[in-house]
Amino acid sequence: MHLPLDGGGEDVLRLTEEIVTIFQELRHRKPRVHCLTNSVAQAFTANLLLAAGAIPSMSASPEEIENFVGRASALLVNLGTLDAERRAALPLALGAAAKARVPVVLDPVFVDSSPPRLALAHQLMEQAPAIIRLNGSEFQALAGLSPMPANARDFAKAKHGVVALTGAGDIVSDGETMIRIRNGHVLMTQVTGMGCASGALIAAHLAVCGDPMLAAVSGLAALGVAGEIAAETARGPGSFAAGILDALYGLDQEALEERAHVETEVA
Amino acid sequence: MHLPLDGGGEDVLRLTEEIVTIFQELRHRKPRVHCLTNSVAQAFTANLLLAAGAIPSMSASPEEIENFVGRASALLVNLGTLDAERRAALPLALGAAAKARVPVVLDPVFVDSSPPRLALAHQLMEQAPAIIRLNGSEFQALAGLSPMPANARDFAKAKHGVVALTGAGDIVSDGETMIRIRNGHVLMTQVTGMGCASGALIAAHLAVCGDPMLAAVSGLAALGVAGEIAAETARGPGSFAAGILDALYGLDQEALEERAHVETEVA
Amino acid sequence: MHLPLDGGGEDVLRLTEEIVTIFQELRHRKPRVHCLTNSVAQAFTANLLLAAGAIPSMSASPEEIENFVGRASALLVNLGTLDAERRAALPLALGAAAKARVPVVLDPVFVDSSPPRLALAHQLMEQAPAIIRLNGSEFQALAGLSPMPANARDFAKAKHGVVALTGAGDIVSDGETMIRIRNGHVLMTQVTGMGCASGALIAAHLAVCGDPMLAAVSGLAALGVAGEIAAETARGPGSFAAGILDALYGLDQEALEERAHVETEVA
Repeated sequence: MHLPLDGGGEDVLRLTEEIVTIFQELRHRKPRVHCLTNSVAQAFTANLLLAAGAIPSMSASPEEIENFVGRASALLVNLGTLDAERRAALPLALGAAAKARVPVVLDPVFVDSSPPRLALAHQLMEQAPAIIRLNGSEFQALAGLSPMPANARDFAKAKHGVVALTGAGDIVSDGETMIRIRNGHVLMTQVTGMGCASGALIAAHLAVCGDPMLAAVSGLAALGVAGEIAAETARGPGSFAAGILDALYGLDQEALEERAHVETEVA
Repeated sequence: MHLPLDGGGEDVLRLTEEIVTIFQELRHRKPRVHCLTNSVAQAFTANLLLAAGAIPSMSASPEEIENFVGRASALLVNLGTLDAERRAALPLALGAAAKARVPVVLDPVFVDSSPPRLALAHQLMEQAPAIIRLNGSEFQALAGLSPMPANARDFAKAKHGVVALTGAGDIVSDGETMIRIRNGHVLMTQVTGMGCASGALIAAHLAVCGDPMLAAVSGLAALGVAGEIAAETARGPGSFAAGILDALYGLDQEALEERAHVETEVA
Repeated sequence: MHLPLDGGGEDVLRLTEEIVTIFQELRHRKPRVHCLTNSVAQAFTANLLLAAGAIPSMSASPEEIENFVGRASALLVNLGTLDAERRAALPLALGAAAKARVPVVLDPVFVDSSPPRLALAHQLMEQAPAIIRLNGSEFQALAGLSPMPANARDFAKAKHGVVALTGAGDIVSDGETMIRIRNGHVLMTQVTGMGCASGALIAAHLAVCGDPMLAAVSGLAALGVAGEIAAETARGPGSFAAGILDALYGLDQEALEERAHVETEVA
């Protein structure tokens, strides 16, 4: 990350400024983001990207995916509902991304539940995705370490990528710095595909920001703030799912500045 | 069913108590429920399960499904959008369920519209699912009988399973007793995947309740009550779909006791 | 189209009357509409059809699709997320539609992004779908012409079908007349699957109206009016997506008459 961070209040202000800038850039540039993602999360993911200003595409067809990835500014690879079609499309998508220098976010969803999926995720790690987004159980399965900030940092360092470890209090690390995002709301865990969609939102930020660490922090902060706003009027997870799209769509500089709660984490 | 029922008011009170207990148990135990279900209903089904407190998984990949089923406490098999992948995953899922003694709910959706699907449903009936959930047209196609309560009872008896025949006034029978659930709202028929999701909710109840008849009654009563609550403020099927998730998420003992409307049916 | 149109105010009144009649017919007859459509749009499409009064089915299984199409009153073919299964189902669906004289709406979504999909769309055009629905970029890719009303008319004439060119101000042409529908709201572009669902809604109108031009005009006008109503209370794309289903479900003669804004377009 290009911000020299020493953990003080200055850093926080500068980080918040960066988050605002990247989010506005996303609105302005409306990047195409291709998502090879699971069928459960597809619609919510596409709606979240649209709400943020990005243009989603979702084809998993081996015959077509290279065309879509080649025209995109970022690629999300989510391992959920990995059927034969998606499995065949995966190397093609990654090949097209490498060729066109399209940055990749990997979301190894549910690797803790399925050994073949874990093996695949290990393989994909070798292709150096810019960012890996996962929750605590998935981190534990993939890294073989408990989901602590320092372990996320060490895993990021070993893998030469940025790790975005999400949960109550997200941690992002590039192997050196650790940043904690203290936004979000518990209702976010009650909407299917929210985690998957957050990976896509990170990819959208990565599409307009060359720094993977900042992209991950910005994406998670924007979603967390939108979640907090939505929770204020939600009556449960159904109205919350609609409300977070509304909130992200209406998110402005003021709300982001006021509510984004990021801080450097000391190991 | 372990409740000796004689059709009186006592039964109703005791049934309502059981429903409350099972629903609370579901909240408390948060069981994993694997759903081999159609792509149209996947997201709504997952959201309904989350709103009730269960943890859904949805993979239909033959390579993975045994791992997911083996870790689950109930399996839903829904025959909608039955593509080659799902078709291949089906026997694997059922095999894993049998091996790990995971109880199965079968939802033979649209068997009335497709002869090959009907043939498959007949085959699956041989594997003794704990519960079969279907609507009137599907029952007619599968049982070859008109969708009357006594026919549901006879079919349940013949198949050694519980039949949950849904419609305006659901009927559940284990081949002996028949219970009618007089909850729900007509808007439930205007949301795609509601029937499919109700099968998943029954599976979630089955995951925490060894008695398939009580599980089916509880699942349908909880959903019906949530539907009634949602209908009070809905402005149409769109807000209703969000509202029923909100209502199920917020459903408490008091609302269930006050509103659940179950009664034994005399043939 | 059987209305002789001369572009005056009389035409508009008669067109609006026709729109009302067709929409009421749809409510009354509740036609089955089979949709071979992409996985992202499936749930929203099914919900939109239900809100309008139609009965959706969505199977893409080659083994079953002929049964579903044969029982339907219209078929939507949408080329999104065209996996191997859908690709195999496509000729079967079209064959069954031809055999049972089920009219077809073709939605060549994203043909501008994928050469193989464009080639397939050209092939499908040879099978004379009653209506082609597409946006400006897709029109440009498929017709090789800029998305101007006169070009839509010429393309419709060349292809012996009705072209519904959607965007800010939809244009429908049968190769002779051009009708512009000035309804809708910008939030419609922020909901994933809205365009795909509009194709399905046109198919539902086609199921009850022998005139493809009127069916396309009615479908787009009804959706556009519902969108305007929904936008009045929406707080963003999330509440808007629910709201447009509510509005379509509640749409009545008065609102349609008052708000439908159609006019003949002079080249």
